[in-house]
Amino acid sequence: MPSSIVCFGEIMLRLSPLTPLERLEKTHALKMDFAGAESNVAVSLAKLGHNARFVTCLPDNGIGQAAINNLRQFGVDTQYIRRSGKRVGTYFIEYGASVRASQVTYDREGSAIAQVKAGDFDWESILVGNDWLMLTGITPALSESCRQECLTVLATAQKLGVRVAFDLNFRRTLWSHEAARSAFDQILPYVNLLFANVGSVADIFGWNPDPAQRWEDHQENARKAVAILLQQHPFDRIALTIRDYSSGARQNWGAILHEHHQFYDSRCYPIEVVERLGGGDAFAAGVLHGLEQRWNHAQTIEFAAAASALKHTIPGDLNLLSEREILEVADGDIRGLIKR
Amino acid sequence: MPSSIVCFGEIMLRLSPLTPLERLEKTHALKMDFAGAESNVAVSLAKLGHNARFVTCLPDNGIGQAAINNLRQFGVDTQYIRRSGKRVGTYFIEYGASVRASQVTYDREGSAIAQVKAGDFDWESILVGNDWLMLTGITPALSESCRQECLTVLATAQKLGVRVAFDLNFRRTLWSHEAARSAFDQILPYVNLLFANVGSVADIFGWNPDPAQRWEDHQENARKAVAILLQQHPFDRIALTIRDYSSGARQNWGAILHEHHQFYDSRCYPIEVVERLGGGDAFAAGVLHGLEQRWNHAQTIEFAAAASALKHTIPGDLNLLSEREILEVADGDIRGLIKR
Amino acid sequence: MPSSIVCFGEIMLRLSPLTPLERLEKTHALKMDFAGAESNVAVSLAKLGHNARFVTCLPDNGIGQAAINNLRQFGVDTQYIRRSGKRVGTYFIEYGASVRASQVTYDREGSAIAQVKAGDFDWESILVGNDWLMLTGITPALSESCRQECLTVLATAQKLGVRVAFDLNFRRTLWSHEAARSAFDQILPYVNLLFANVGSVADIFGWNPDPAQRWEDHQENARKAVAILLQQHPFDRIALTIRDYSSGARQNWGAILHEHHQFYDSRCYPIEVVERLGGGDAFAAGVLHGLEQRWNHAQTIEFAAAASALKHTIPGDLNLLSEREILEVADGDIRGLIKR
Amino acid sequence: MPSSIVCFGEIMLRLSPLTPLERLEKTHALKMDFAGAESNVAVSLAKLGHNARFVTCLPDNGIGQAAINNLRQFGVDTQYIRRSGKRVGTYFIEYGASVRASQVTYDREGSAIAQVKAGDFDWESILVGNDWLMLTGITPALSESCRQECLTVLATAQKLGVRVAFDLNFRRTLWSHEAARSAFDQILPYVNLLFANVGSVADIFGWNPDPAQRWEDHQENARKAVAILLQQHPFDRIALTIRDYSSGARQNWGAILHEHHQFYDSRCYPIEVVERLGGGDAFAAGVLHGLEQRWNHAQTIEFAAAASALKHTIPGDLNLLSEREILEVADGDIRGLIKR
Amino acid sequence: MPSSIVCFGEIMLRLSPLTPLERLEKTHALKMDFAGAESNVAVSLAKLGHNARFVTCLPDNGIGQAAINNLRQFGVDTQYIRRSGKRVGTYFIEYGASVRASQVTYDREGSAIAQVKAGDFDWESILVGNDWLMLTGITPALSESCRQECLTVLATAQKLGVRVAFDLNFRRTLWSHEAARSAFDQILPYVNLLFANVGSVADIFGWNPDPAQRWEDHQENARKAVAILLQQHPFDRIALTIRDYSSGARQNWGAILHEHHQFYDSRCYPIEVVERLGGGDAFAAGVLHGLEQRWNHAQTIEFAAAASALKHTIPGDLNLLSEREILEVADGDIRGLIKR
Amino acid sequence: MPSSIVCFGEIMLRLSPLTPLERLEKTHALKMDFAGAESNVAVSLAKLGHNARFVTCLPDNGIGQAAINNLRQFGVDTQYIRRSGKRVGTYFIEYGASVRASQVTYDREGSAIAQVKAGDFDWESILVGNDWLMLTGITPALSESCRQECLTVLATAQKLGVRVAFDLNFRRTLWSHEAARSAFDQILPYVNLLFANVGSVADIFGWNPDPAQRWEDHQENARKAVAILLQQHPFDRIALTIRDYSSGARQNWGAILHEHHQFYDSRCYPIEVVERLGGGDAFAAGVLHGLEQRWNHAQTIEFAAAASALKHTIPGDLNLLSEREILEVADGDIRGLIKR
Repeated sequence: MPSSIVCFGEIMLRLSPLTPLERLEKTHALKMDFAGAESNVAVSLAKLGHNARFVTCLPDNGIGQAAINNLRQFGVDTQYIRRSGKRVGTYFIEYGASVRASQVTYDREGSAIAQVKAGDFDWESILVGNDWLMLTGITPALSESCRQECLTVLATAQKLGVRVAFDLNFRRTLWSHEAARSAFDQILPYVNLLFANVGSVADIFGWNPDPAQRWEDHQENARKAVAILLQQHPFDRIALTIRDYSSGARQNWGAILHEHHQFYDSRCYPIEVVERLGGGDAFAAGVLHGLEQRWNHAQTIEFAAAASALKHTIPGDLNLLSEREILEVADGDIRGLIKR
Repeated sequence: MPSSIVCFGEIMLRLSPLTPLERLEKTHALKMDFAGAESNVAVSLAKLGHNARFVTCLPDNGIGQAAINNLRQFGVDTQYIRRSGKRVGTYFIEYGASVRASQVTYDREGSAIAQVKAGDFDWESILVGNDWLMLTGITPALSESCRQECLTVLATAQKLGVRVAFDLNFRRTLWSHEAARSAFDQILPYVNLLFANVGSVADIFGWNPDPAQRWEDHQENARKAVAILLQQHPFDRIALTIRDYSSGARQNWGAILHEHHQFYDSRCYPIEVVERLGGGDAFAAGVLHGLEQRWNHAQTIEFAAAASALKHTIPGDLNLLSEREILEVADGDIRGLIKR
Repeated sequence: MPSSIVCFGEIMLRLSPLTPLERLEKTHALKMDFAGAESNVAVSLAKLGHNARFVTCLPDNGIGQAAINNLRQFGVDTQYIRRSGKRVGTYFIEYGASVRASQVTYDREGSAIAQVKAGDFDWESILVGNDWLMLTGITPALSESCRQECLTVLATAQKLGVRVAFDLNFRRTLWSHEAARSAFDQILPYVNLLFANVGSVADIFGWNPDPAQRWEDHQENARKAVAILLQQHPFDRIALTIRDYSSGARQNWGAILHEHHQFYDSRCYPIEVVERLGGGDAFAAGVLHGLEQRWNHAQTIEFAAAASALKHTIPGDLNLLSEREILEVADGDIRGLIKR
Repeated sequence: MPSSIVCFGEIMLRLSPLTPLERLEKTHALKMDFAGAESNVAVSLAKLGHNARFVTCLPDNGIGQAAINNLRQFGVDTQYIRRSGKRVGTYFIEYGASVRASQVTYDREGSAIAQVKAGDFDWESILVGNDWLMLTGITPALSESCRQECLTVLATAQKLGVRVAFDLNFRRTLWSHEAARSAFDQILPYVNLLFANVGSVADIFGWNPDPAQRWEDHQENARKAVAILLQQHPFDRIALTIRDYSSGARQNWGAILHEHHQFYDSRCYPIEVVERLGGGDAFAAGVLHGLEQRWNHAQTIEFAAAASALKHTIPGDLNLLSEREILEVADGDIRGLIKR
Repeated sequence: MPSSIVCFGEIMLRLSPLTPLERLEKTHALKMDFAGAESNVAVSLAKLGHNARFVTCLPDNGIGQAAINNLRQFGVDTQYIRRSGKRVGTYFIEYGASVRASQVTYDREGSAIAQVKAGDFDWESILVGNDWLMLTGITPALSESCRQECLTVLATAQKLGVRVAFDLNFRRTLWSHEAARSAFDQILPYVNLLFANVGSVADIFGWNPDPAQRWEDHQENARKAVAILLQQHPFDRIALTIRDYSSGARQNWGAILHEHHQFYDSRCYPIEVVERLGGGDAFAAGVLHGLEQRWNHAQTIEFAAAASALKHTIPGDLNLLSEREILEVADGDIRGLIKR
Repeated sequence: MPSSIVCFGEIMLRLSPLTPLERLEKTHALKMDFAGAESNVAVSLAKLGHNARFVTCLPDNGIGQAAINNLRQFGVDTQYIRRSGKRVGTYFIEYGASVRASQVTYDREGSAIAQVKAGDFDWESILVGNDWLMLTGITPALSESCRQECLTVLATAQKLGVRVAFDLNFRRTLWSHEAARSAFDQILPYVNLLFANVGSVADIFGWNPDPAQRWEDHQENARKAVAILLQQHPFDRIALTIRDYSSGARQNWGAILHEHHQFYDSRCYPIEVVERLGGGDAFAAGVLHGLEQRWNHAQTIEFAAAASALKHTIPGDLNLLSEREILEVADGDIRGLIKR
């Protein structure tokens, strides 16, 4: 049965050289997409059959309209997107390869959503009747008014009995560790379901994880990260992705779910990475889908891990895979045979 | 010395997202190619210097003409292609990567060739003076009239002393195992040279091959498949490709040839796969080329294995490599160094 | 105030050479769009702020999904699209230039919608609460079951008090004049608002319009066409586009609206044609918009003429212009100055 | 009934900026085609159903092969193309627009055909059984050995009774007027059917045509050009294209045929020019087609004029139009309506 | 002899749909260029052989570097570009056609140059030894600090004896008429050579020009505009472009130069417009080139008018034509014949 | 501190199929770049902040201009490029994959630089005040006059105290071993800094290196190559790249530097190869940069090895990476993580 979720955050214009692997200073055409952590989750959930509503501010011009069209094509409900502000936040991505890093260049300052004002949204109307509210650690970092708006929407959700999912993204180019900690201290008490990974926990809570060689080491670090998180707040559930970079463009990928002192581990998925961005968002959508389908936790974390592993094989931020396609991989069919 | 071959079957419009690895639901431009098992063999043989004639039905419109132009550019003789029917069978391919499967979507019903009628072709004129007729298990599956036409052309070939090569493709979306078995029972008695692989033998004859870990296990399974085939009919020669999927996007690839109780093995080629489709067709052309060049069987199977290994490195169905280029790889130069 | 409309018909995969003006037989990449008369109207109306619901059948594969995504991006309600059938009807378009005609090649037989069966749709649920039902003369021509479904939906609309708009398209490749006449005899009695042009009236009713040199001659012919149509049925309103081809790639374009013995004429718009397809659909949407805005008839026909004139300047079938942009042209700003 | 023709000359690699109207110094991708006056004629004739054989030298590398594939796709017989030499002659074209001229940059020196040696071709085998030999004034200008080879092939044609068609192209960047005159003095006596235009006659024979305003003036100049040509040699037939540039990107285009003191005029075709190159070659093919179809001369010149008018609407050098499509325009349908 | 010029202003990232004439809300790839009035002038002058230095601020990231590379490729001296600030001002352009206007959407707020601070540039070092300083009315409108910087650079130029050219662009989206008037009152006293057109004079000085039908009417309006300008300040020279929009996508274009009570008129150039942007910048460069070549004023204005007429035939803002190519058109060769 | 270097050689038009991995005979659009060993070094050095001057001959047409623009965009000083000759040398590259080799097809004969004449360049003016002259073994192989010009420039450099760097490239398609040996015997005495690799030393000096399995074996071979080179001439410094092909598309890459009987080894970089061409040129630039930065030799060779390893991840010949980006990899960050 489809559930209903409201995602609130920024959707950005995403530009990357049309010629694969080209540098920006030598390119002459750009692929035009739109992406953002929360809207990526909304697209995944809509693709999995849920009612996903995305809320943001976008200017009343062709780029703002293109962003809306982009969301609508995947079935996301955009009716509460406010047409205000002057610009769409933008980022450029130069893909790396092998030993060369990918480089993201942000040009997001002054975006429409960063200039949100109290009262711009009627959150009761937007949230009522929904099952979940999804936020991430990016939105409160965009501006002081965004941080306030997050608290407003969280309070409204609590009041209406809408559960809260939160992804602990930390963007060091947007704010300091201290500012993040202070904001998260206000936010986390509202959160039912927390998404994170070893890196973000380490960044935010000043933790220094042990070096990890084997997959089991990475899993152990994830367990420690859960412990640290539980010291902050007794979250109902915590779900972490696990990434093992040690082999360059080839990565091992998996996940872990915690509830009531119990850990549920996914398999380790060896993947050749087509695209790094959007893996965590696909994972969050996968966990939410499993919970709403009332699958057991082992099934849920396996599905979410498979979903996000698959996401790494698709260009762009969006995880355009159906439940059936994800289940096949979650069931162990990871050879990538041709299907006719 | 060039030999002459007639290939009969369907050539389809092949459409795939122009942006690599994109999903159909997010794409806006399509690469336009034409392909089909029998026409792929014809192109390979023309590229290797033989007189390759391709026979089919194509509608008298721009798409039909584009299909013909596509074949002609590689030197295939298209003079006996009949302009009839209303549509060109079509398929869409979404390429996968890593753990994500490639997905082929067929839209081939009602194609011109599926509506062939007895008497549409003057097979004596078409076949006379040729060395080989090449068919595959796809054509009889297209329609009842196609199945009948296959039998007609086989009988004509037998009458004219034209040898018959047949690739035992089985397409489960086109017909049932029973229908296939019944058709193949009629066809196989005409066949001199049979192409197959472990998978198609298993599918058609209800055989359950042993799990294979090492390359030798795969070779052993191939030998067993030959034994099963020989129970059906005493084929002069049987040639099988061997594919070891165990390592995901990287595969081991090789082949085996059987004649008079003797097996001839190729090397095992480790390949990084650019394109899965067309490997078997390149192999069939390679075997036919070796036989017509009067090479010894070890040379022939090595050449055919190298040809089809190389095919996996070219986008699209067609094996656009010259004899010299294939021989270099067959001779062991598999490092892919740059040639100036 | 937005009104609500249901459009029922076929949406097709539209493929055209990616290189401008190339012929199909020389092209290697195709632009991929989706279009159909009724869905074009739905997109225009959604763009103008109305609730536009499009109803059809589409197969449950990537192409069907792409068609839905294409509609959703422009805000069309696709929730009642039925996922059934095996293929999406397809057409190829080779653009001409100057003295060279554009060539449309249809491959639409056996499409999902052509195989609609009685009972596939619950029309009461689909239509209830809507202001308009929009059909065209294409759908009843697709198959006998399509013709029946049109009558069913018309009867349901009548029962529910939903007004009916109908575009008198005649496709000679789909059926004969006699078959069309016979179907239209059944359909037209349900129609409140009829769209047509001199050519379709001439084709269907065997009328031979006078040769026209001046714009006034074309307008006079349009008036005669209205008279012919009124002999069939006392339509509340009839709206005709007027096209004057006499100057090649440059055309004069305008429209006329009839109600209660009164004619309302638009200006004559001189246009340089970027794209011929979709002009009539943009016109129909423009008339419906004006009526629903309660504009007077002179304003309405001017708006609709301007909308469809503008449509000729956009590649593809869809009229992606806002009310404000259309009004500027309807108000006489036809110089195409740059706006900053 | 199809006739057989041998065309001998150079086929060049043709490169133009992929972004329309871009300058070479700002472009980053090139459209890749192959073209040459004689091969253009061969493609046109093959498209019209004739047996067209193209003879040249091309190096044994990927570019040479691409040139052959390009010809073969349109059905041209390439079996006598000699694989020799080191490079394919190349030209770059920057398209102009409005008041900006198109700019062709040649890089053709040292091409394979320019280095032809006596005895490279067995002309008797190549020509025997053919109806026509087609040459142009470009080939003798490429090199001294090319000039000699032209004389050899002309003498062989005369001996075998193969009629000779010749297009009087004059390329001032390749040779002087004097050298051209001297070569043409040797060549023209072999010619049965001569193609020319006012400009080439003026250039080569030092004639100064009267300024022309009206179409009749241009026709009159063409008649004078015929008179000048007849002073050189009593050609059986002379066919001239007539181009009236006076209106910029829009041109009037027509043709005239002379035989036995009789002139046959085509209509004047007003055209908006998509592509200037290849018009004369399309015309030559049109005249040859009409003659071989045994049409009367009025029909022939109308068909040829329509064919070359249509050529101006297709990007690239090649006239990819069928007899039926050309006949429709020759019959007066020049409005470019859409055909479904 | 080459002269030296310093241009100061903003260079923006210019993005337009890669598919011609597509709307932003339906596009998926963007052509990436860089443009700005002052940098356009610099590119034109570098192309004409002058030492053109462009000065601005650009962030130290890949987009800033791409902007610099873009200028350097055409030979502009970029050594004094300051790497500071966070973003490159951006604009999107949707091309219109026929009756449809082109739409420019700016996203330039907060660009690096808008945040220039006093002392950021060492103007004496930058200007010394140069012949000209070129500014436009856009830069002072970007921010208060930009306005101040303009006054600083003007004062420095005056001190060093560098002559000042100024283009009276007025951007109504950047500031009010009053603000513009106030700024121009400070700027114009420094100006030796003023560029303008009827529209900008009308906008800024609240003048209402007479309706113009014939070319002569447009010329008369231009003369009146000169008179108005001379009331502001006794400019040495004033050069105006004249545009006659009356015929839609086809425009008449010309120019007028005033010095010492004397007017110099160019011819009227009928042009089919490929691209509207950059015409005025090409004109300014053309006038400066003529002056520096010491041509007489009639020659200069003809050259500048031809240069800017030609600019309308090139996609993008930049006038990539050589002196020789412009002179051919200035000499009356406006038929756009092909050059080989 | 930036140093100044003069690079002299050929820059070629580089054309490769726009569709990745396509064969030339099936492609229809080409990516257009410009490359050459010496100009690649110049671009790398300019990118690293040095004054890099590239000297060659280029024809005065659009292609020659495009080559200059291409260099200028990366900040290379092109003021001494001579506009002469008729053509730009060209090469085509078909990328291979896995077991398929990449294929370079040269069409460089008769290029402008190959026709250089004594006195064409005023080398004293060009070289004076520069720190380095960079040549490679390709230029003397282009023509006899090129060989002479190399000796002239070397003698001038010696006279002016400009140090000489030389890359021992050997192109077997351009000349014989004997001709190369003879030319190098004249050139090497001028050389201060020599670049080479095991393959070129083996080719030129008829040495047969031992088969190498482990990285240490490759290093050992490199040491032996240095010994052989030192027998020719007591070079100040020799720098060799080390490539271990054994694993197909994945290679191990490193370098070694020799000075005063001392060897300095880089790490071994495991790389997945995006592009083979240009690695040696990136290496040469890296060594020169380290030397000019006065880094110690261990730092220098590590930087150069990292620079050239990174080059393998960028499409095209040019190493568009900044010093900072290279240093990160040289410091051991080879996991290719995403940077935000």
